[in-house]
Amino acid sequence: MLERPIIQQRGFRNTADGSGATGFQLRLRNPNYRGISGSLVDGADVIVDGRAFPRDAQRWTLQGRTFTLAELRASTDVRWQLDETATLHIDHPGGLGAGVHQVEVAVRLRRPYIPEIAGPSVFRCSTTATIVPGTGTPHGLRHGVSLYSYSGDLYTSMTLEDAMADIADLGATGIEILGEGNIPGYPHPDPAWIDGWHRLLDEYGLTATNYGAWVDTAMWHDRDLTAEEGSAQLERDLRLAKLLGFTSLRPKFGVVTPELDPHPLWEPAVERVLDLAADLDIVICPEIHSPTPIKHPVTQAYLDFVERTGSDHFKLLIDTGIFQTAPVDDGHEGFEGKKRPPFLEPLAVPMGDLAEILPHVHFIQAKFFEIDDHLTDLHIPWHDIIATLHAADWQGWLSSEYEGRREPGRGRDQVRRQHALLRSLDGTARA
Amino acid sequence: MLERPIIQQRGFRNTADGSGATGFQLRLRNPNYRGISGSLVDGADVIVDGRAFPRDAQRWTLQGRTFTLAELRASTDVRWQLDETATLHIDHPGGLGAGVHQVEVAVRLRRPYIPEIAGPSVFRCSTTATIVPGTGTPHGLRHGVSLYSYSGDLYTSMTLEDAMADIADLGATGIEILGEGNIPGYPHPDPAWIDGWHRLLDEYGLTATNYGAWVDTAMWHDRDLTAEEGSAQLERDLRLAKLLGFTSLRPKFGVVTPELDPHPLWEPAVERVLDLAADLDIVICPEIHSPTPIKHPVTQAYLDFVERTGSDHFKLLIDTGIFQTAPVDDGHEGFEGKKRPPFLEPLAVPMGDLAEILPHVHFIQAKFFEIDDHLTDLHIPWHDIIATLHAADWQGWLSSEYEGRREPGRGRDQVRRQHALLRSLDGTARA
Repeated sequence: MLERPIIQQRGFRNTADGSGATGFQLRLRNPNYRGISGSLVDGADVIVDGRAFPRDAQRWTLQGRTFTLAELRASTDVRWQLDETATLHIDHPGGLGAGVHQVEVAVRLRRPYIPEIAGPSVFRCSTTATIVPGTGTPHGLRHGVSLYSYSGDLYTSMTLEDAMADIADLGATGIEILGEGNIPGYPHPDPAWIDGWHRLLDEYGLTATNYGAWVDTAMWHDRDLTAEEGSAQLERDLRLAKLLGFTSLRPKFGVVTPELDPHPLWEPAVERVLDLAADLDIVICPEIHSPTPIKHPVTQAYLDFVERTGSDHFKLLIDTGIFQTAPVDDGHEGFEGKKRPPFLEPLAVPMGDLAEILPHVHFIQAKFFEIDDHLTDLHIPWHDIIATLHAADWQGWLSSEYEGRREPGRGRDQVRRQHALLRSLDGTARA
Repeated sequence: MLERPIIQQRGFRNTADGSGATGFQLRLRNPNYRGISGSLVDGADVIVDGRAFPRDAQRWTLQGRTFTLAELRASTDVRWQLDETATLHIDHPGGLGAGVHQVEVAVRLRRPYIPEIAGPSVFRCSTTATIVPGTGTPHGLRHGVSLYSYSGDLYTSMTLEDAMADIADLGATGIEILGEGNIPGYPHPDPAWIDGWHRLLDEYGLTATNYGAWVDTAMWHDRDLTAEEGSAQLERDLRLAKLLGFTSLRPKFGVVTPELDPHPLWEPAVERVLDLAADLDIVICPEIHSPTPIKHPVTQAYLDFVERTGSDHFKLLIDTGIFQTAPVDDGHEGFEGKKRPPFLEPLAVPMGDLAEILPHVHFIQAKFFEIDDHLTDLHIPWHDIIATLHAADWQGWLSSEYEGRREPGRGRDQVRRQHALLRSLDGTARA
């Protein structure tokens, strides 16, 4: 699907030749109610951060062909359809800086069935849009996105392919999913869907990273799940994850205390599938999630399990919400009358604790809630986190997990901001 | 795609047995960020127009199977996936009245990974939703919808199939499209798309009605189209319309005066394709659209053309905007600084003029801008229009064309309201 505003967030990027950035490009949705011939497109006035880029100097790409405005006016065989975007190319030596820009567009279309005295029709859009810098020097960190970030948008204004296109567009290469959530027909997806999944991974250059699974220990009303039932659920998800190319699986167990202690069946249930995980080469990684810090009996129990079993297919997943330094007061879906559930309080786990545990950490969910127009995260100390990961030369996935307000499209925008921020830090935090 | 709010407009309807309406049903989107087992669904509190319908008395349909809440709690093999809806069945002898209702829902889900002291998670949604009455006694009027009504929503939150499902859901049987707008790859759609189009028509029980075409007389910058070029465009659209099963085609010609006089090439261009239209059995029907009334030289010229050519494949299309009795002050996309373009002024064409011309009218676009919570149209006198059509025993399509504000989802909601209004009038206006 296209994004509703005329200006599409996906596709806003700098353009370059061999010598560096030469300008930027913007993707636009046709704002009229009908498709039109290219000759009826009368350009678009563009203003970025207050600076006007005159329409006569722009080039337009429609249906895979690129035109100056004069060429477009004289064109006879190209169209701007409602279900296709136009890409506007704008010269601007050096390009735009990484980060959030104020972008205004006034698209001008001639409509022959409207009297000439009315002049061309003008369709305006004003928004912020984010330039994500190039991936820069390779290092151990790999960037991905969890589909959780798009909750609410997925299935209402975004398809799975839209999500994958968004992720690829910001230069990330990993995709994390929720098994019971993002797999139609779970736990028995249609083989055609599985083929399509692999085709889309290829097409967008994405790697399947982590698979979110649940063991709903309280799913029956009259009794808890047994360890056998829990391990059967894990086995089902491990096999499905393998089929889809994932290399780690996060099991979320039901909890038995307000402090989120997992149901004790976690240990026998996981132990039963450790050999299977090794056979499939999938790392099972329970999540260390606020309000549970790193120095805590739950985390220690996981480490003790590693030591006791000697398994190298059981490691930790860190949710960066544990490093939160300021409260999040946007509430949370499903929590009635609780402006700030415990996991939205600032837990502020020290970086030293992270450094200590990093050898056991397989995957990081880059949880965040809000990044402002200056690329400042209001809650999560990214500079410190990235510096800690770099210092330890930690190798692995940093997978965006947006968990802020769910206005339509907000997750997509915030993920772009987070990647602009993280990619900028990649270049500086090591220094 | 699903609608973003938890409560889906599509699917809100009365349920009946042989003796009449016994209750109503509501379709809900899973408001959580993951799919869940049916046993974790703890019901939904529903309030309609201030009246509470207790959750223990409801039945739920998930994945094609229907459960009481007790059965759902005990279920072991049914899920509520993110990309599927649940249908809630509520007993209410006599059903809900036709029209707009205030509907509130609080969906309760158990989430085992959230401490029990937090209780079930509650997800609330409050909205208006419209009950469209049954089609009632058959008569000459047939009800359809133009995809123009969904401008802005189509391709951003609605697929073509969503539009067709919406139309079928409100009991309409006709679909009108914009050729250059709703046909991907226009003017040469993929044969697979054409097959899919016919499959969807069958699946949703819809008839292809009118095909909107344009003859953009001012599409070149250095000269007007010639009559030959104009007729070539008409021929292309006629053949494409036939391929898709349409039985009429509205050509929209460029205009040459502020009063919307069409470019004079309309006459030779149409005359060249009259035989083709007869061969294809497609009626060409130019649109009588505000600010052009019925008693006007443009309309008269069309009637003179019919008389001169003797063709029965050239008739009139009436846009009900010409009957508008109050100004529309919501502006119009593309019109800069003009709060009220001429076609949004109340033209208030008398019903007598409509009655006089009805023998020449092939199709009616049921243009409207806003219908309020009491099913009152603020601008278009539907009672008078329907009474005039009934009195003349006019046979043909009344095709919804919503042209009001374009907030996301508004067109879909307004079309339901219009059909509730028109269907209610069907039963009363003849009296």
